[in-house]
Amino acid sequence: MASPHSSSTAFGPSAEALRMRPNAIRALAALIGRPELISFAGGVPSPATFPRAQIAEIASRLILDEGDRVLQYASTRGNARLAGAVVDRMRRAGVAWASREGTILTSGSQQGLDLVARVLVDPGDVVFVELPSYIGGLAALWAAGAELVGFGLGSDGPDLGALEARVGETLRAGKRPRAIHTIPTFQNPSGITAGGEARANLLELARRHDLVIIEDDPYSEVYFGEEGKPPPPIAALAGARERVVYLGSFSKVLCPGLRAAWVAGDPDLCARLELAKEAADLCSSTLDHAIVAEMVDGGMVDGRLPAIREFYGERCRAMLEALERDAPEGSTWTRPTGGLFIWVTLPERVDAGARLHAAVEAGVAFVPGAPFFVDGGGSNTLRLAFSKEDPRRIAEGMATLLKIFAE
Amino acid sequence: MASPHSSSTAFGPSAEALRMRPNAIRALAALIGRPELISFAGGVPSPATFPRAQIAEIASRLILDEGDRVLQYASTRGNARLAGAVVDRMRRAGVAWASREGTILTSGSQQGLDLVARVLVDPGDVVFVELPSYIGGLAALWAAGAELVGFGLGSDGPDLGALEARVGETLRAGKRPRAIHTIPTFQNPSGITAGGEARANLLELARRHDLVIIEDDPYSEVYFGEEGKPPPPIAALAGARERVVYLGSFSKVLCPGLRAAWVAGDPDLCARLELAKEAADLCSSTLDHAIVAEMVDGGMVDGRLPAIREFYGERCRAMLEALERDAPEGSTWTRPTGGLFIWVTLPERVDAGARLHAAVEAGVAFVPGAPFFVDGGGSNTLRLAFSKEDPRRIAEGMATLLKIFAE
Repeated sequence: MASPHSSSTAFGPSAEALRMRPNAIRALAALIGRPELISFAGGVPSPATFPRAQIAEIASRLILDEGDRVLQYASTRGNARLAGAVVDRMRRAGVAWASREGTILTSGSQQGLDLVARVLVDPGDVVFVELPSYIGGLAALWAAGAELVGFGLGSDGPDLGALEARVGETLRAGKRPRAIHTIPTFQNPSGITAGGEARANLLELARRHDLVIIEDDPYSEVYFGEEGKPPPPIAALAGARERVVYLGSFSKVLCPGLRAAWVAGDPDLCARLELAKEAADLCSSTLDHAIVAEMVDGGMVDGRLPAIREFYGERCRAMLEALERDAPEGSTWTRPTGGLFIWVTLPERVDAGARLHAAVEAGVAFVPGAPFFVDGGGSNTLRLAFSKEDPRRIAEGMATLLKIFAE
Repeated sequence: MASPHSSSTAFGPSAEALRMRPNAIRALAALIGRPELISFAGGVPSPATFPRAQIAEIASRLILDEGDRVLQYASTRGNARLAGAVVDRMRRAGVAWASREGTILTSGSQQGLDLVARVLVDPGDVVFVELPSYIGGLAALWAAGAELVGFGLGSDGPDLGALEARVGETLRAGKRPRAIHTIPTFQNPSGITAGGEARANLLELARRHDLVIIEDDPYSEVYFGEEGKPPPPIAALAGARERVVYLGSFSKVLCPGLRAAWVAGDPDLCARLELAKEAADLCSSTLDHAIVAEMVDGGMVDGRLPAIREFYGERCRAMLEALERDAPEGSTWTRPTGGLFIWVTLPERVDAGARLHAAVEAGVAFVPGAPFFVDGGGSNTLRLAFSKEDPRRIAEGMATLLKIFAE
């Protein structure tokens, strides 16, 4: 962090600051963020799915008619209409225990992860995370002082034998196993979805070791066709109420620039999350949450889901077709039925990161898989996001990319 | 935190969660938030100052024309146009060292306080805070594990003798004096402004003991008449660059529901704040910051400052006149030349909090002073916000309130 600008020691970092780790993907931004590239890198929703006209109309109307409210501070708990709609949504997903007192609206799911980490995790606690996992989730847990221990993912979700072994090792090392972070549906980065039985078994393992499950679920509404519909969330299973904290988001089904997400969990936990949010930012953007409340409660988000599913499904199929056609021998890849990502495992000797420069020079960007692994593995893996490019450019970019990996 | 809903121990709080304290003012919300009251309680800007039509027009235009950008994730550092305007603003205020690398945009100043506390303060560090001080600042510092030690405020700002004594006691107790949190201009809750000499002496004291100064400055542009113009910020003094981190905000000069504020400081510190913000919420509301960028960079915020100053100045005068006329014998009060607040000290035997119910029953709300003191003092004090009511209602409410205190 040295800089020619600084000549003082007064600003020395706290222990927490020293725990924070630069996001390896953001560090690649200068390389993979070039606008002229065919990009499979950025894991963000396509702006083509943003309903601009509706949002513009609602924003303008809310500011003119209700500016006293939507331009003023909000309560920390947030917009009551949006919270009510979230409770309805949770119940519809099978989470019968969802309640207003058990719901906190946040400025994106990242804030939810940060608040949950802050109120549940003490420095040195062990949190079990998927191999690979979402880097933003890891960042929030690291900041809170968690020691992160990875467990593998199979095609049906968590490798429970590996997780059980990691818990045993943690206990024998005299450490405190605290929680499991999981993205059970259309996982970022792998696209893997845990089956119904795997979910039940994960909850049973958590119960046996008195672990909290942090269920991070931003993608579950983005499924492709009825056959792609995922099982109910872990939060909906019997006994989940006592140990699952659930994070949902509107970023992928509406847009992420309006920062609107939620945490659903035990009401006492939510009371602590509310205190933590009060210290963290007092309240979310009043305007953002008011707009999202109108869109969600007015049925405009649900009304657009079929089109969004079709939009990403078509792109996913185009990418899978390219892989079937041209993937180098010895590679494997996931076949997601929703979400934004496909995960490719190249033959073991191939270092995906080492091919990134060649790919970018040839006009295609991707994200190497290694930064998603807390155990130092994954050098022969990569994440491909099919959210940004249209099917024609996906075919074109994949042909280029797979040629580079075949070399 | 007991609740009939909870039957699990899995969600036991972290040490950080146990450090978080409920906001004593928010706990009074049910009492002082009744809409029919003449309210001197809420320390929030008046919606009458929000430029609805301008904001509605800009919001609608940005969403329609630039929806791809303003509805998408932003970078963690935030909107470049807004950051540039902030640097200009800081330089205009005399902070010659202000730079783009030394600026982080945040979701309100509360987020800035939280990030600064997280990256600078270790549990057990002593942070010196004003008596009285802003409760949100205290909350962020407590969450980070700071031990808060108070120093008094005189009519010209910090009591430096008291502060020096507290630093000495801290060192003798083997604790680490880390930082001073100060709101030098139109302080919340007291309305006090530190003079130029007091600012220089505070910086000199901080230099001598190698303390960081957290300069929390949301009100300095809201001054009443040229004679009310405050001295330059502490950040503008020679040597400030090495130990001052400055927090500014658009909440009081535009509106707080668009969450837009900034931290200016050492570039290395800002690199750490950026990492902390990435873990905390990835990015602020893209739409909020794009709207505020247009307003600020387009001169619409500066253009409205004279009217905002006049608006609050008239209300402040009305409240001061009422105090001159009817304050009970033995009371004193501050005579702010800016901001939103007047601070009243009643005769020592009078417990302001004990009169709150009677005041509310008579139709007037205020905030008792005690929660603003980390040392348990202030029972005979209260904060009066002149921001919400018009001069006629201020006169009416003050007559009622001062009668109650005279009893």
